Amino acid sequence: MRIGFIGLGAMGKGMAGNLLHAGHEVTVFNRTRSRSEELVAEGARIADRPADAGNAEIVITMLADDAAVEQVLFGEGETPRSAGASEPRGLIDSLPRGAVHLSMSTIGVALSERLAVAHRDRGQLYAAAPVFGRPEAAAAAKLFIVAAGDAAALERAQPVLAALGQRTFRIGDRASAANVVKLSGNFLIASVLESLGEALALVRKNGVDPAQYLDIVTGTLFDVPVYRSYGRLIVEGKHEPAGFKARLGLKDVRLALEAADAASVPMPIASLLHDQLLSAVARGHGDRDWSVVGRVVAENAGL
Amino acid sequence: MRIGFIGLGAMGKGMAGNLLHAGHEVTVFNRTRSRSEELVAEGARIADRPADAGNAEIVITMLADDAAVEQVLFGEGETPRSAGASEPRGLIDSLPRGAVHLSMSTIGVALSERLAVAHRDRGQLYAAAPVFGRPEAAAAAKLFIVAAGDAAALERAQPVLAALGQRTFRIGDRASAANVVKLSGNFLIASVLESLGEALALVRKNGVDPAQYLDIVTGTLFDVPVYRSYGRLIVEGKHEPAGFKARLGLKDVRLALEAADAASVPMPIASLLHDQLLSAVARGHGDRDWSVVGRVVAENAGL
Amino acid sequence: MRIGFIGLGAMGKGMAGNLLHAGHEVTVFNRTRSRSEELVAEGARIADRPADAGNAEIVITMLADDAAVEQVLFGEGETPRSAGASEPRGLIDSLPRGAVHLSMSTIGVALSERLAVAHRDRGQLYAAAPVFGRPEAAAAAKLFIVAAGDAAALERAQPVLAALGQRTFRIGDRASAANVVKLSGNFLIASVLESLGEALALVRKNGVDPAQYLDIVTGTLFDVPVYRSYGRLIVEGKHEPAGFKARLGLKDVRLALEAADAASVPMPIASLLHDQLLSAVARGHGDRDWSVVGRVVAENAGL
Amino acid sequence: MRIGFIGLGAMGKGMAGNLLHAGHEVTVFNRTRSRSEELVAEGARIADRPADAGNAEIVITMLADDAAVEQVLFGEGETPRSAGASEPRGLIDSLPRGAVHLSMSTIGVALSERLAVAHRDRGQLYAAAPVFGRPEAAAAAKLFIVAAGDAAALERAQPVLAALGQRTFRIGDRASAANVVKLSGNFLIASVLESLGEALALVRKNGVDPAQYLDIVTGTLFDVPVYRSYGRLIVEGKHEPAGFKARLGLKDVRLALEAADAASVPMPIASLLHDQLLSAVARGHGDRDWSVVGRVVAENAGL
Repeated sequence: MRIGFIGLGAMGKGMAGNLLHAGHEVTVFNRTRSRSEELVAEGARIADRPADAGNAEIVITMLADDAAVEQVLFGEGETPRSAGASEPRGLIDSLPRGAVHLSMSTIGVALSERLAVAHRDRGQLYAAAPVFGRPEAAAAAKLFIVAAGDAAALERAQPVLAALGQRTFRIGDRASAANVVKLSGNFLIASVLESLGEALALVRKNGVDPAQYLDIVTGTLFDVPVYRSYGRLIVEGKHEPAGFKARLGLKDVRLALEAADAASVPMPIASLLHDQLLSAVARGHGDRDWSVVGRVVAENAGL
Repeated sequence: MRIGFIGLGAMGKGMAGNLLHAGHEVTVFNRTRSRSEELVAEGARIADRPADAGNAEIVITMLADDAAVEQVLFGEGETPRSAGASEPRGLIDSLPRGAVHLSMSTIGVALSERLAVAHRDRGQLYAAAPVFGRPEAAAAAKLFIVAAGDAAALERAQPVLAALGQRTFRIGDRASAANVVKLSGNFLIASVLESLGEALALVRKNGVDPAQYLDIVTGTLFDVPVYRSYGRLIVEGKHEPAGFKARLGLKDVRLALEAADAASVPMPIASLLHDQLLSAVARGHGDRDWSVVGRVVAENAGL
Repeated sequence: MRIGFIGLGAMGKGMAGNLLHAGHEVTVFNRTRSRSEELVAEGARIADRPADAGNAEIVITMLADDAAVEQVLFGEGETPRSAGASEPRGLIDSLPRGAVHLSMSTIGVALSERLAVAHRDRGQLYAAAPVFGRPEAAAAAKLFIVAAGDAAALERAQPVLAALGQRTFRIGDRASAANVVKLSGNFLIASVLESLGEALALVRKNGVDPAQYLDIVTGTLFDVPVYRSYGRLIVEGKHEPAGFKARLGLKDVRLALEAADAASVPMPIASLLHDQLLSAVARGHGDRDWSVVGRVVAENAGL
Repeated sequence: MRIGFIGLGAMGKGMAGNLLHAGHEVTVFNRTRSRSEELVAEGARIADRPADAGNAEIVITMLADDAAVEQVLFGEGETPRSAGASEPRGLIDSLPRGAVHLSMSTIGVALSERLAVAHRDRGQLYAAAPVFGRPEAAAAAKLFIVAAGDAAALERAQPVLAALGQRTFRIGDRASAANVVKLSGNFLIASVLESLGEALALVRKNGVDPAQYLDIVTGTLFDVPVYRSYGRLIVEGKHEPAGFKARLGLKDVRLALEAADAASVPMPIASLLHDQLLSAVARGHGDRDWSVVGRVVAENAGL
């Protein structure tokens, strides 16, 4: 299939690679062009502008945040070009009728709903298919994918999703529902950072060895990587290099809270996480791994 | 070994049975005598008073709360007996020098420290060995045990612990540290009730099927029984019969907060859980399963 | 002075009237035209479109929320008109160079900063001058005004501010600072709703008469109208008619939290208020007075 | 009247002095005897033990905390005396039948209820009459008093209360209700510390001068000493010498939460205050003024 792939970050590069390996014809765009060039040997074509990746059956976006998606799709936030006002402002204007936009990065509910309307207005198809998994899982095509949106879009995207992940969960035709699921999943992980952080501060101040405590907890009730790996980062106070930066975690919690606000759902733990992550940023930890929440908790306890 | 076993609730009865099966000589006491009688066929002797179970090498307490432990050990809170003021007030006065008290139920840090002093003053040995696991695990000798206290006590208790659980974690000689670990473990479980409850309320109000959502979450990030089983109770709104009552969950969160207060550790999620469980009790759900926290969250969202 | 006044709600109408009484030449615009007509007898001219009020030395906006300000100033959110695409989209295009925009309603920091840039780009002057006071205070020219922005704008607006309020606090030349002060003031009031609500729930469940309790509190420590009047609304459970609707309170707390987010300031009480007001809306109280927060607190306590 | 007065701290000394000035016959007890001696010139007799102050018509306690009251009344917590086991253990055993115990310091609900039962069992009268006001108000007989308990006790205490305060609020015959009112009043003050602290952090990070901000807030909405004086302490970062220590504030919030727990009342702001004050203590501010809560808030914002 002819595929456009926009956004070659830690996740996107492995994903684009897997699409190439699966035999698809992939045109890639990345703001920093050198990332794109690394994929040429594997068969990728390079687009100079997002719009140039849009001449495809399916275009996948895997971008850092809502602003990046808005810029790529709608051309918003760009420095306006003096001349050429008539040329397409963003990807959405270059995508053919009937083509599919598959939004795979973590974006907000409001933006996803705006995209659904904008694509429908132009006769394009849209689905959200955010993923669970770290860069290694992306490279190994082991992602879990949560997909929702136009049935026809997801039908068409089937081989693409199969090439990227180990399993796809289909949850209906409202694309933004998939984004909510993704955001709530990140919220659940962040909740673990905070609750583990509190438990660890408590036991440390009671003379318990935190590493042994973590062994007990993950050897009994919570024998899963989220608890094991983040627990270890908190115990070791090792928040660099960041697997996922605190300021990105803050962004996702913010998006979860915006979705909660729109749906009138009080989420007191999410509110707390927002405050803790803000404090992490205010204390200078914004570029550290978001497990630094455990450090904020410890500092608040005088540790 | 000659063992006294006090408290034959849902957990204690299976545990006492396992000690009998392992060939120990067990004298049991339970406030409701009929529970004791059910163990006679398996070889148990029945004590009429807690103090009568105290003529043993090891006495195990597996009682409902701190008040029950205080009454059994110190005779506090009992209606004072008219005569016989000179007879032993509680178990602590009948336990021989050198005997071991193994406190296996979930009690507070302050009480555990008080017990440590009181036993030491009398030349008795004391260890705390609270357990993780539900009644079925207790009956199957599959408990996880966290043990701390006098080294000699734990040495002596080794065969007892082996007969009760699948693994014992030794964490030093300060008995109350084991109680902190147990309380913090229950805190972590309660945190899951709240965070899952919030996530479920959010996705429900965004049109996602909650059962499917739970499948996604437990099929990817959180593939452990705590998330699976409590998640299902929340999704199904099935809080009766109670596996663990909300008012007992409240008690444990209260004990965790008391430990946090004593150690100057702010625990904002624990504070939140305290408020949510208080609200559960205030709304009439005190005797429902503590997964009812998820219902409180949903009600607050207008669901 | 020639003044444009946009937004004749409960606050705006009294304010516009005071400007007329002070002898100014006032052109008013309101979405519902009948409100404007009521001011004609007092000398007001009526504008048919916001842009028509813009031919003035000073234009004042006193609108319901950020969206209304964006629509009036930038024409955003309006149904696009078929023809006439070349006519001015919003007030900002019809305001003369050198004219002053005085933004007096409660808006967010981000919007205020966007306005500052947009006006500067067009050679217009901008200041924010939000007010404290209820509709009666607005009608009686007893408002407290917090003003910040272009010094020249505030100089020129001096007689206007004098005609509207009893006192103006000047706090520098960054207009959005005045908006922050206003938002933080509403946050402080909302904090009183919650803290009083909690105290009242506590004493009620301890058998204390809540009206008498309020007398004690406001007769000793908190002898100010905020505590007296909101306290009485909570005690009497009288949340209709709404002086200030819960959904507007929610909006202001949301704006305060957005400002806090932008400045990396954890505000845990604001986060709590956001959740309580969301719950109020979710429970169907969105159009009741925001003192209904006290009812949410009471319901959570089973009252 | 013959009055025993126990506890000559910053508050108690002024109060005892006022009773002497009013012509009462006052026997005082204070753990540090030198404080008592300072009142001899004004006519006080000195008791060597609390029990010696008990030969009176009314005994007033004005002690630091629950533990001090328990020690004075019940002799608990004292190092046991070797001999003399038959001599009265505490004040409660030396107080004549029909005498009145007026508990005026800030104690918990549970202790107040225990005192009510203990006095009733001995044919003594009991009332709680906690006060609002700082040491200067105590010295000037300007306290506000909230009184509840045995009607006969309060009848008898009438001239005493008149000599101590500017106004007494009678709120029924359940003594502990007065303690709840006092605790909730301190909770309301602590809420101001936190909400003002949050507002000040927000405006500071937006470039607003905090002193000017405080002038605006207290010149408009919150023109009362609680906001003025605590606000100034937060703005100036002046938390020493302590008017009321953070660890005492923590104690009172803890007692409020215990009352809330007993009555099943979720108090999320109180829970937050508990965490912030714990953090203050953990960061080494326990002996600073409790306005240091504002500093904790600021530090969490990176200020």
